[in-house]
Amino acid sequence: MPADLSESGADPAAPDEILFPNVRIVLVETTHPGNIGAAARAMKNMGLTRLVLVNPRLFPHEKAVWRSASAADVVHGAEVVESLDQALEDCQLVIGTSARDRRIPWPMLEPRACGEQVFRAQQARNQVAVVFGREAHGLKNEELQKCHFHVNIPTGRAYSSLNLGMAVQVLSYEILQAHLAAEAQHLGDKAAGSAADQPWDIDFATAEANEHFFTHLETTLLEVGFHDPENPRQLLTRLRRMFNRIRMDKMELNIMRGFLTAINRLAKK
Amino acid sequence: MPADLSESGADPAAPDEILFPNVRIVLVETTHPGNIGAAARAMKNMGLTRLVLVNPRLFPHEKAVWRSASAADVVHGAEVVESLDQALEDCQLVIGTSARDRRIPWPMLEPRACGEQVFRAQQARNQVAVVFGREAHGLKNEELQKCHFHVNIPTGRAYSSLNLGMAVQVLSYEILQAHLAAEAQHLGDKAAGSAADQPWDIDFATAEANEHFFTHLETTLLEVGFHDPENPRQLLTRLRRMFNRIRMDKMELNIMRGFLTAINRLAKK
Repeated sequence: MPADLSESGADPAAPDEILFPNVRIVLVETTHPGNIGAAARAMKNMGLTRLVLVNPRLFPHEKAVWRSASAADVVHGAEVVESLDQALEDCQLVIGTSARDRRIPWPMLEPRACGEQVFRAQQARNQVAVVFGREAHGLKNEELQKCHFHVNIPTGRAYSSLNLGMAVQVLSYEILQAHLAAEAQHLGDKAAGSAADQPWDIDFATAEANEHFFTHLETTLLEVGFHDPENPRQLLTRLRRMFNRIRMDKMELNIMRGFLTAINRLAKK
Repeated sequence: MPADLSESGADPAAPDEILFPNVRIVLVETTHPGNIGAAARAMKNMGLTRLVLVNPRLFPHEKAVWRSASAADVVHGAEVVESLDQALEDCQLVIGTSARDRRIPWPMLEPRACGEQVFRAQQARNQVAVVFGREAHGLKNEELQKCHFHVNIPTGRAYSSLNLGMAVQVLSYEILQAHLAAEAQHLGDKAAGSAADQPWDIDFATAEANEHFFTHLETTLLEVGFHDPENPRQLLTRLRRMFNRIRMDKMELNIMRGFLTAINRLAKK
């Protein structure tokens, strides 16, 4: 009996929809081809498709294809260029990944704000690049200075060096999150329910039905001698809180009512 | 001349601080040892240290250690158990990763809400498990039904299957984000500035200094004949917007004033 199941999932009719045609991921002088493949998979998982490689050490390479799994199209479609300037030529927003370094203060973004900036720039049809440096040394100062913003992925203190593919994953995830948040907002404007609502198969119980349930529960507790109205010990309050916390659906409530009725019958025997 | 540089970075005195002692990442029947290593690195990068492996196919294995890079301690410290029940025994909050599947509706969390739930449970000193399934098939229904919540990482439509290590990365990232957000809130309560403020080495210019600059800019534009007050074409408005967007610091403003003064001197010759 599916009811207010708010549909926010995939549209199988558009499996190859390109969400971010103007956003490129730029990898500078990547050493390990496996990381290129991992980055490609992370990108495609998050709806990104355009990969630009600046002087990769080993490319093309079978390891890049293997690690990309079903994102081999992103690997094969990667543009290879000889300089970061070539990679950025037509870009209107350039964001470079950076360790938090106080020697060259630069407008810094958190990953979430980075995702939002990239999304807004894509919406405005700007060309956008998110640039990742070498596995061991990151981006050089002169490369970082080509960027409008720097982005730093916060880490724990014990180990701050993220794998390159993982860094691409986190920032790509935040770009898609910004897109989905805007989409949910849009849906929320159009309909009563938000796309962030949990899908559920049964209507939730109404407040009225819940009150009937709580009354029924109380009488049943009295009936079975468990609840002493002279010495309540917050029993009903705690039960209310517990049942309200799970937000019962109609079927669950009916089951509980049936259970209580069965107890009542037993008590009257 | 460092001034209002709000300190929010690492504390080198506490490199091995354990942020989430009560949170365990549980990997069920992982096939590739490389994924165990990647997960360990992702965890340690985000301040997580406790890894539990349910029936890993190949473990211990050198590939797990190699892929973990500097998180070999997490790999070596992993607990290996024979059943998910063993892994979850003392857990008070269990969250399982799941594809969005309408056949078994379950309380679903977005990754961000998952991070917040895990963080709050850690704060309350609850034992928490975040459970990841097999590379090819995920978690089985009976495993998912041991969870309080399911979490789904949203993807683009073209390719929805995340690599296991990447999934661990995204959820671990959101757990640390929840911790950092709470920390920033705490710092924000204590001091005027928030920890999310951009670090900068020089004080920002005051509004008064900016106004003097804009006046100086206008007179200079007139002086050099670039600005025609009879036909302004929004020139000053556009310049204001640009410089305000830059949010000049005091040193930058002094440099600009010096530049204008030099132009004035030239014009007066």
